[in-house]
Amino acid sequence: MTNVNSDKLSSARFAQATDAFVEVFTASVDFDQRMAQQDIEGSIAHAKMLCSCGILTEQERDAIINGLTQISREIINGEFVWSIKQEDVHMNIEARLTDLIGIAGKKLHTGRSRNDQVATDIRLYLRSEITQILGQLTRLQTAILDLAEQHADTIMPGFTHLQVAQPITFGHHLMAWFEMLSRDRERLQDCCKRVNIMPLGSAALAGTSYPIDRQMTSDLLGFSRPSANSLDSVSDRDFAIEFAAAGSLIMMHLSRFSEELILWSSAQFDFIEMPDAFCTGSSIMPQKKNPDVPELVRGKSGRVTGHLVSLLMLMKSQPLAYNKDNQEDKEPLFDTADTLINCLRAYADMVPHLEAKKTNMYNSAKRGFATATDLADYLVRKGMAFRDAHEVVGLAVRLGLESKRDLSELSLPELQHFSGLITDDVFDYLTLEGSVSARKHIGGTAPGTVRLAIQTARATLEHDQLSLLITHHKTGAAAPGL
Amino acid sequence: MTNVNSDKLSSARFAQATDAFVEVFTASVDFDQRMAQQDIEGSIAHAKMLCSCGILTEQERDAIINGLTQISREIINGEFVWSIKQEDVHMNIEARLTDLIGIAGKKLHTGRSRNDQVATDIRLYLRSEITQILGQLTRLQTAILDLAEQHADTIMPGFTHLQVAQPITFGHHLMAWFEMLSRDRERLQDCCKRVNIMPLGSAALAGTSYPIDRQMTSDLLGFSRPSANSLDSVSDRDFAIEFAAAGSLIMMHLSRFSEELILWSSAQFDFIEMPDAFCTGSSIMPQKKNPDVPELVRGKSGRVTGHLVSLLMLMKSQPLAYNKDNQEDKEPLFDTADTLINCLRAYADMVPHLEAKKTNMYNSAKRGFATATDLADYLVRKGMAFRDAHEVVGLAVRLGLESKRDLSELSLPELQHFSGLITDDVFDYLTLEGSVSARKHIGGTAPGTVRLAIQTARATLEHDQLSLLITHHKTGAAAPGL
Amino acid sequence: MTNVNSDKLSSARFAQATDAFVEVFTASVDFDQRMAQQDIEGSIAHAKMLCSCGILTEQERDAIINGLTQISREIINGEFVWSIKQEDVHMNIEARLTDLIGIAGKKLHTGRSRNDQVATDIRLYLRSEITQILGQLTRLQTAILDLAEQHADTIMPGFTHLQVAQPITFGHHLMAWFEMLSRDRERLQDCCKRVNIMPLGSAALAGTSYPIDRQMTSDLLGFSRPSANSLDSVSDRDFAIEFAAAGSLIMMHLSRFSEELILWSSAQFDFIEMPDAFCTGSSIMPQKKNPDVPELVRGKSGRVTGHLVSLLMLMKSQPLAYNKDNQEDKEPLFDTADTLINCLRAYADMVPHLEAKKTNMYNSAKRGFATATDLADYLVRKGMAFRDAHEVVGLAVRLGLESKRDLSELSLPELQHFSGLITDDVFDYLTLEGSVSARKHIGGTAPGTVRLAIQTARATLEHDQLSLLITHHKTGAAAPGL
Amino acid sequence: MTNVNSDKLSSARFAQATDAFVEVFTASVDFDQRMAQQDIEGSIAHAKMLCSCGILTEQERDAIINGLTQISREIINGEFVWSIKQEDVHMNIEARLTDLIGIAGKKLHTGRSRNDQVATDIRLYLRSEITQILGQLTRLQTAILDLAEQHADTIMPGFTHLQVAQPITFGHHLMAWFEMLSRDRERLQDCCKRVNIMPLGSAALAGTSYPIDRQMTSDLLGFSRPSANSLDSVSDRDFAIEFAAAGSLIMMHLSRFSEELILWSSAQFDFIEMPDAFCTGSSIMPQKKNPDVPELVRGKSGRVTGHLVSLLMLMKSQPLAYNKDNQEDKEPLFDTADTLINCLRAYADMVPHLEAKKTNMYNSAKRGFATATDLADYLVRKGMAFRDAHEVVGLAVRLGLESKRDLSELSLPELQHFSGLITDDVFDYLTLEGSVSARKHIGGTAPGTVRLAIQTARATLEHDQLSLLITHHKTGAAAPGL
Repeated sequence: MTNVNSDKLSSARFAQATDAFVEVFTASVDFDQRMAQQDIEGSIAHAKMLCSCGILTEQERDAIINGLTQISREIINGEFVWSIKQEDVHMNIEARLTDLIGIAGKKLHTGRSRNDQVATDIRLYLRSEITQILGQLTRLQTAILDLAEQHADTIMPGFTHLQVAQPITFGHHLMAWFEMLSRDRERLQDCCKRVNIMPLGSAALAGTSYPIDRQMTSDLLGFSRPSANSLDSVSDRDFAIEFAAAGSLIMMHLSRFSEELILWSSAQFDFIEMPDAFCTGSSIMPQKKNPDVPELVRGKSGRVTGHLVSLLMLMKSQPLAYNKDNQEDKEPLFDTADTLINCLRAYADMVPHLEAKKTNMYNSAKRGFATATDLADYLVRKGMAFRDAHEVVGLAVRLGLESKRDLSELSLPELQHFSGLITDDVFDYLTLEGSVSARKHIGGTAPGTVRLAIQTARATLEHDQLSLLITHHKTGAAAPGL
Repeated sequence: MTNVNSDKLSSARFAQATDAFVEVFTASVDFDQRMAQQDIEGSIAHAKMLCSCGILTEQERDAIINGLTQISREIINGEFVWSIKQEDVHMNIEARLTDLIGIAGKKLHTGRSRNDQVATDIRLYLRSEITQILGQLTRLQTAILDLAEQHADTIMPGFTHLQVAQPITFGHHLMAWFEMLSRDRERLQDCCKRVNIMPLGSAALAGTSYPIDRQMTSDLLGFSRPSANSLDSVSDRDFAIEFAAAGSLIMMHLSRFSEELILWSSAQFDFIEMPDAFCTGSSIMPQKKNPDVPELVRGKSGRVTGHLVSLLMLMKSQPLAYNKDNQEDKEPLFDTADTLINCLRAYADMVPHLEAKKTNMYNSAKRGFATATDLADYLVRKGMAFRDAHEVVGLAVRLGLESKRDLSELSLPELQHFSGLITDDVFDYLTLEGSVSARKHIGGTAPGTVRLAIQTARATLEHDQLSLLITHHKTGAAAPGL
Repeated sequence: MTNVNSDKLSSARFAQATDAFVEVFTASVDFDQRMAQQDIEGSIAHAKMLCSCGILTEQERDAIINGLTQISREIINGEFVWSIKQEDVHMNIEARLTDLIGIAGKKLHTGRSRNDQVATDIRLYLRSEITQILGQLTRLQTAILDLAEQHADTIMPGFTHLQVAQPITFGHHLMAWFEMLSRDRERLQDCCKRVNIMPLGSAALAGTSYPIDRQMTSDLLGFSRPSANSLDSVSDRDFAIEFAAAGSLIMMHLSRFSEELILWSSAQFDFIEMPDAFCTGSSIMPQKKNPDVPELVRGKSGRVTGHLVSLLMLMKSQPLAYNKDNQEDKEPLFDTADTLINCLRAYADMVPHLEAKKTNMYNSAKRGFATATDLADYLVRKGMAFRDAHEVVGLAVRLGLESKRDLSELSLPELQHFSGLITDDVFDYLTLEGSVSARKHIGGTAPGTVRLAIQTARATLEHDQLSLLITHHKTGAAAPGL
Repeated sequence: MTNVNSDKLSSARFAQATDAFVEVFTASVDFDQRMAQQDIEGSIAHAKMLCSCGILTEQERDAIINGLTQISREIINGEFVWSIKQEDVHMNIEARLTDLIGIAGKKLHTGRSRNDQVATDIRLYLRSEITQILGQLTRLQTAILDLAEQHADTIMPGFTHLQVAQPITFGHHLMAWFEMLSRDRERLQDCCKRVNIMPLGSAALAGTSYPIDRQMTSDLLGFSRPSANSLDSVSDRDFAIEFAAAGSLIMMHLSRFSEELILWSSAQFDFIEMPDAFCTGSSIMPQKKNPDVPELVRGKSGRVTGHLVSLLMLMKSQPLAYNKDNQEDKEPLFDTADTLINCLRAYADMVPHLEAKKTNMYNSAKRGFATATDLADYLVRKGMAFRDAHEVVGLAVRLGLESKRDLSELSLPELQHFSGLITDDVFDYLTLEGSVSARKHIGGTAPGTVRLAIQTARATLEHDQLSLLITHHKTGAAAPGL
């Protein structure tokens, strides 16, 4: 600052300087400097609008834009000196701007306050993070589709209660993961509708007495509309919570994938080979090949749910409008975005290199009485009531267990002992291939159905990407890098 | 059951009966009987589809429908005998159906499993609860609009940091609440898109070998489409988590309203009079009028966030597909829905009877140097840089504090002592009415702007209600009762 | 009530009756009637104290005690009529008491308020629940000790990262569970110190003007002391949160046991046979034997953590002293206690019937290069640096993996190819038995060490039980039923 | 490393190098370097023990100790170069040690693994943090006692439901805060008992085949004992969860203090003046004096609860023993400790400078019918039943409300209109001073009682500090700095 020598925003009101520890304790610049580019982007739009409304001269506007552009470069080049005394990213940039261009720097704050400025910065930041997350989601979903296509016919055991239940295809299993991620994509897009609304111009809480044009700023920044109520605009952190909730679901899904990958790469299951590049060893047990990435991702699911709780508790019973508590919104939000991007990226990198051990999968399905339901269905088609058929199959399974044989290895007389309806066509229904192929309705595990599901999914994903590109073209934002 | 005497679903496989305590411990009928009507509705649609596909005869279908209709009546009339031995709502109804119509009752289970059946029931249940919640939201939002309209001109202090900041209107403050609820409405509607997808026909996890028509069942039950992957369908509880997240935001908003109502009905603020009918007294202090409803609602916000955490933790790292853990999804879901309906209803009932104490609000705004920003803006318009004006106002406020006078009560020479730019037109800008009226851009607190915001909001709400009615007409569901 | 006709505690102050829905919404009798016996116990002690201090006559005291004793019986016999109009358990009992004994019933409320009364009731309730939980913990710990003793020599693979790491004994693994539960026991006992403090006499918030003797009431009720500050006493719900935190840890531990039991009873691991009585079947797959109890217990871990969050959020930023929010403390507390008792009971019932499949365990350890560390240690003892030995073993394991042989199945020349330090005594160190026996320091897996650990644990547990009995003898409370 | 050129711990086993992004993603050195001094301390003790057991020579031991001592200095001086390639703090230090002293550096890892090493480091770290937290707690508690002593006679309104209930003293209110913190202190001390147990020597999971002396290492490091089970030792993170739970309660308490300080420093309450040094201003409203520190502390309560949830979810259903998930334990733990230390420090610094506005407090108590209960008690002492007295007072309060007078301002005939038992001695009981002084039982608000409570508290606190000093003298650790 030039003519006002002060460590404190409003020092004239205060008889006493801020305590040195309190200055550090209450400063946010350590973490909110991350929003510097968004802060500058918002300020430039604000300056253009102020000039268009006659509040700034064109010279002032240009000086501001030039100054901010230089600051942007300084930050990118790591030359900018951040100061705790300047509390937060906004004050640091403003102070530097005033250094660079003098009095006009201070005019930039006309018609806005830190309350609406920070709300704008976070929304710009989050919009950009969501774009990146969607990009990583697309990569992961594409990798899953590719792998599912390779394994549309690969038979494995389907589990319920971690007990072998029925044969399915690995492609079908992979498509279950795809579906989860599709919902995640939808939720992020829905969330983004509520992120992409502009609070700027709400000032401290009541709006400003300057004749500003909020629609213009909103358009310049690519927001869908200015917010409808100034008090709400500076108090609202719903978008952060909704994002953390969507993120918690993503991480929950990744924790489920992880659990399966860990199980499947154990010696006992041995269904997949994890790529070496995503595993590490042990300091004492050299034979170990630890599925580090899935384990770490599984562990990180708690982290994002923790942030969600933290944000909900943060906002609980706060009276309107802005309170200092809200400074606590940033760290959980930033860490949630980072965690999502990193975990999705790690998975998108890893999935193409998963190697299915087809023989192990097949044998494991065969050993588990996995076609018991098919026997029951066979009996029902022969006229037995379902619940009775269920009982008959139960008796057959018990015999199988006791004699360590699969159902298909029981003799016809043995089977007929349980029901006279059984004839020797029964063995056609007890193969894994027969079982799988029969489930060909929408959503079923039959190879043809799975291939169709993959095809539909691919088309939807491509269409969705296209819409995204068009949206980004319109807002001038960068499309999500793939 | 008729010809199978068993306490256990698959007793033939088991050498040993279920432990008596375990039977109670693992049963869910105590809480899931609440989905009985949805279970019957789903079963009737399933029977119609099975008949249409040639799996049931018309007689069987009709017997099933008649039997289920009778059971529905028995449940409504409280005549149905629920049994822990039958574990859950599904088995209880099926057992009773077999009692009533014999062997055909067992055939109903063809082509489905409890895993997809329960997933269908919950979605039907939740869809209906969301409709009710939207109905209560509409009631509350309408009440807020009505109250805001009465108070578009009522001046009160706007707070930041619970310090008086700038004058606003009570109508503007109320509209901040309205905005929060509008986002809640949107989120519930977005959530409902993902609820309204039909899992039935996914059977245990892999689909069924019967030639079922899932599109038909989906249409009969008013779902938007059948689910795309059978494994995912029986494993997915995203909808419950997303609902609990949307619910946590609603409760967080209500906790913020509650905090303000509690503050405002304290003797120290004394801004509103709560209706007696929503308060209670103290057993030892007869003078007390406790804002019980807001306090209880504030307290209940933790409850819904607790359920959200419970559900996220429930699903964390579960391998596919269905696991018994999932039985734990129902109680938090049911309680979340109940809590939302009750809290919204209580608020919708209460808000129309809130009485604003206008004089107290006005005086409180006046005492707080609330027009300090207006003085700063005045100086800036006279040519002073914003940050410098800020310093000048700070000095004026300090004088006001020391001499216990409002800014408007300082003399012209006193004000001019701080800046020569001040002339006697300054006093026009230091009134509350002037301050409020000046904020007339989109989202500002000026009475005319607030009235316009109310008008727009009312139109949107009505349009939204209309769409809802049309949707419900199409699905055959009851419109949300107002 | 007799001469005061009122639906509302303090109707004289109110011009308007409570709204009918609000009456139901704010009532707690549906769930707090569960504390009825504690309420009566507290009231009897209070009456004795009031009489001893000259505030009640002996006749009044006796009438109250007789009335309350009769009410206690009515409740136990299910004859008591609970009324929503009387709001909560306290008012229901007081109203009935006044019915029974007239005016003296009202005098019971002298020198106390519902605020301290409810705080006392919850603490009495919770103290009793903790005693029951400790009893179930003891049962489960004893069952674990018994099973560990049987399996002190049973070799199984020890896992890290779900990869076979080193051989351990099943007894050693079981003792890891025992250790977790020992910490849980300690935490509950520590929690109980803070539960067992008496708030009664704090009245609404400030204490009472009657000359009461809080030490006497505290002694009568078996509390360790009266609370030190009346405001804190009616505001404090720390004990509920601390209990829920201790409970969350217990459930987390049980979720880990559960995960292992589920893994181990999968066809792929096949390490244990779960007792039939704790499993159920599938409605469509008769061959399934689902580990329902462990799955359900694993699922319930989220439930208790949810309650913990709910309670922390409930108390967040409540100003002193009592607020209606606090009514929300009971349901999570009750459900936490129920969940803990039921889950621990189910486990204590189940553990004695777990059957270890020793051969499978042994073979699984053998197949996993589990003695790789022993080879490394062997090399180090021969003079090689640990990190270098680690590399040598890594090469040997790679050869083993490629040729599908265990380390003990490699030939001496093959091993010597990696290091000249290896001689034919190496094979003595590559057996599972040798590996396990070598780990005989405190906390190691050697059978003798495990047996010693069991012996010490049993002694500690017995000593702890004895202390508990002595404590209960002193307080007159019932000892935890085993 | 010297003769092994590897980016990966166990590269010999691996055919493929770690992916570059995965290397960064899975590394922990960015945050775990914070435990460097604990890591060195643990290694030195381990080296001494290995030498004492004949596993290291004295020269090796000394070389290790000298090397580690140099590394410790390098780290303190900021000269140490941390490398992501070395993954974590342990590998970084070990690699540097091998650089400095050669082959002997590798021998340090004999008889331990990273699994037990990291568990030891965290416990050493946490023990030290708890000591600091206890130190800050003591400072804050002492500040509260000092302030309470000044205000043992200062009358203020006591609130329930944020409605004025009864007069209390400010000293009494402060002592409620003291009580909360006393429980926090107890909980931390109880937690510390379970932190202070030594896992070292548990190696990867099963212990080691070297003849180590765990009791010796435990003694050298000031632990109370070595852990009892090696599997449990490397899997257990209870201590982190218990610490986060205790921390959540501390933060919940601070959020309640904060709420009250924020309310009391509002213009509407105006009970206290916050010290300028702990407040900041607004960028647009220069008159504002925002209670930043309390607001920020209130906001931070969600943060610690978030960490607690994160840790509970992290551990949920992890099979034994160590999994990579556990790496996620550190950040929440570190941030919890930092948050607690900072928030307690800020409060300990701030509380001595809180200025009570006695006149405002007194007048506020007077205006609220705060002696209504005293009137009821007066009537009861005259022979009226409590519940009837309650009704009479209710009628009197209603008259007061309607005529805007306090109870003490009603005339005798007016009061007698409600009950003939009232005589003119009633006015002695309606003063605030009389009301407060009458509550002189244990825990009551009478000034003398409060003074006695302060005296007792001070003695207990001093005794507790003394015990702590003795403990630290014994373990050789530094006493908590005051």
